[in-house]
Amino acid sequence: MIRIGIMGYGNLGRGVEAAVTKSPDMELVGVFTRRDPETVKIHTDGVKVYKLDDCKTMTDDIDVMILCNGSATDLPWMSPEYAHYFNTVESFDTHSDIPDHVDNVNAADIANDKTSIVSCGWDPGLFSVNRVMANAIVPNGKAYTFWGKGVSQGHSDAVRRIPGVKDARQYTIPIEDALEEIRDGKTPDLTARQMHKREVFVVPDDDVTEEDKQDIVDDIVTMPSYFDEYDTTVHFITEEEMQRDHSGLPHGGFVLRSGKVGYEDDQSAVIEYRLKLDSNPAFTGSVLVACARACYRLNKDGKYGCLTMLDVPPAYYSPMSRDDLLEHLM
Amino acid sequence: MIRIGIMGYGNLGRGVEAAVTKSPDMELVGVFTRRDPETVKIHTDGVKVYKLDDCKTMTDDIDVMILCNGSATDLPWMSPEYAHYFNTVESFDTHSDIPDHVDNVNAADIANDKTSIVSCGWDPGLFSVNRVMANAIVPNGKAYTFWGKGVSQGHSDAVRRIPGVKDARQYTIPIEDALEEIRDGKTPDLTARQMHKREVFVVPDDDVTEEDKQDIVDDIVTMPSYFDEYDTTVHFITEEEMQRDHSGLPHGGFVLRSGKVGYEDDQSAVIEYRLKLDSNPAFTGSVLVACARACYRLNKDGKYGCLTMLDVPPAYYSPMSRDDLLEHLM
Repeated sequence: MIRIGIMGYGNLGRGVEAAVTKSPDMELVGVFTRRDPETVKIHTDGVKVYKLDDCKTMTDDIDVMILCNGSATDLPWMSPEYAHYFNTVESFDTHSDIPDHVDNVNAADIANDKTSIVSCGWDPGLFSVNRVMANAIVPNGKAYTFWGKGVSQGHSDAVRRIPGVKDARQYTIPIEDALEEIRDGKTPDLTARQMHKREVFVVPDDDVTEEDKQDIVDDIVTMPSYFDEYDTTVHFITEEEMQRDHSGLPHGGFVLRSGKVGYEDDQSAVIEYRLKLDSNPAFTGSVLVACARACYRLNKDGKYGCLTMLDVPPAYYSPMSRDDLLEHLM
Repeated sequence: MIRIGIMGYGNLGRGVEAAVTKSPDMELVGVFTRRDPETVKIHTDGVKVYKLDDCKTMTDDIDVMILCNGSATDLPWMSPEYAHYFNTVESFDTHSDIPDHVDNVNAADIANDKTSIVSCGWDPGLFSVNRVMANAIVPNGKAYTFWGKGVSQGHSDAVRRIPGVKDARQYTIPIEDALEEIRDGKTPDLTARQMHKREVFVVPDDDVTEEDKQDIVDDIVTMPSYFDEYDTTVHFITEEEMQRDHSGLPHGGFVLRSGKVGYEDDQSAVIEYRLKLDSNPAFTGSVLVACARACYRLNKDGKYGCLTMLDVPPAYYSPMSRDDLLEHLM
């Protein structure tokens, strides 16, 4: 049994917990939180919630610590810190900072014979794996990443900061015509507006007038970098409608590569990878747990240091034996 | 520069040649054939064609030998044989024999500090990688593999053996309604007929009557295991039409996994991987060349033995440095 600790218990922590407790080769040892442990109720019976640094006395009890914390302020210090004590897996997703983050975590791993896999999930993560493999196989081509249909927390937050907005939810939606053009073997140059559109649902404050609503719409659709480069539709709804129709966190997207292989210039190859997820955190949690299995095995192999999913042989994610994989899934 | 040899020069060998000569980190050393080398004209200027076993005197000149031979009678002996002399990459695709084939090649590799990657391509190969990863991430789910739209050589050959048939081409076509049902998060039990249909183009012999044609159609649609479990459409065409409209070798397909993650039973996750290829051998050749790059590196790492794409970290396929991958494709 692979003994797992979970650090941080929000939506992602709950997704990880569900995936660990449903994995026959894994055991959940504890959940670690900055909140008062008494106030954190978890799903799994018989598993304790601890204060964050209680884990430092439990290094012999946990094979892999899964950090379910945020990329903005938590993981930049937590991942290097806890890599001193544990093999770790996390989902750091600030793309531009990944090289430095890998270096920071690697130093802690190497000093302690630990293995970490960072930036796990779907983007970065599964989408990265597909970008790299498709790029290597079809070098004479062009790559595209589309996101959605799904909720963007950053865009939803940006709308919530507009005066007169009580609550908001923003959906990023890929444009089907662009997808079809690429699937047909073409390699168009696409602007932001040609790849995605945005749809916003707003609950206005009680005292908002029709004129105020027009101002809110204008504020949204002209907002620099968030909305101004896209076609955006805004809908005003009630709090009840928000609760009833928009409480989920669906997401997904597409990685496509279209190009030419062989000697004939008119022969195309198109590789498409698609995710369609009713729950972004539940799926990301499932990816983290498969990565924890790989992390445990790579550490047993003596592969110390900070890795990403680009460094993991696919077989390492699976609970099946090599013989079973060759016989049933090859 | 990675020095590559190509063994066997049919459609696949030509696809490999195209991909090698377009790879800036690779050099084509020679093509090895069982035919009279004088009769084999290759694309690349300044590269020699040799008799098959001339390669045994060139072990210091070739880093990876790519075997472009058939799975039925060639690769079962050639892959173990040449793994004594070279790191090798090939596309053995008789799924049920893969475990034994891996064992045979492994013995030769291990005895000679060589590395082989067998069963490379898209199925087995890229589709296997996707089946294994999706299975590990969404264990509570169901997997589907669809092929096409594409030419099946085996089915085309079976039709050609029917009396009165001069030439034939068979297309395997996935059924769109089944794909859509799975993309919607459902996990239907599907029969062969519900997943694929078949379309056959036949050039009849000159003396074939209308009555003979009806017999040919009956022979095709009732042919056990090849056609009887599918809905099949048969078209009679002229030799000119066959040449003009059906001389390509397009193929492709879909690997899908649909299941549940997290605690809520009504929340689904769907993973889809799709290939759409104008030329099956040109694309398979491109995959083999990316695998040759990985094979060379894994051998340098001291990873001896027979591997499959399930054992290869994605970064190993790419000519880009690790820093560049983390910065640009993560």
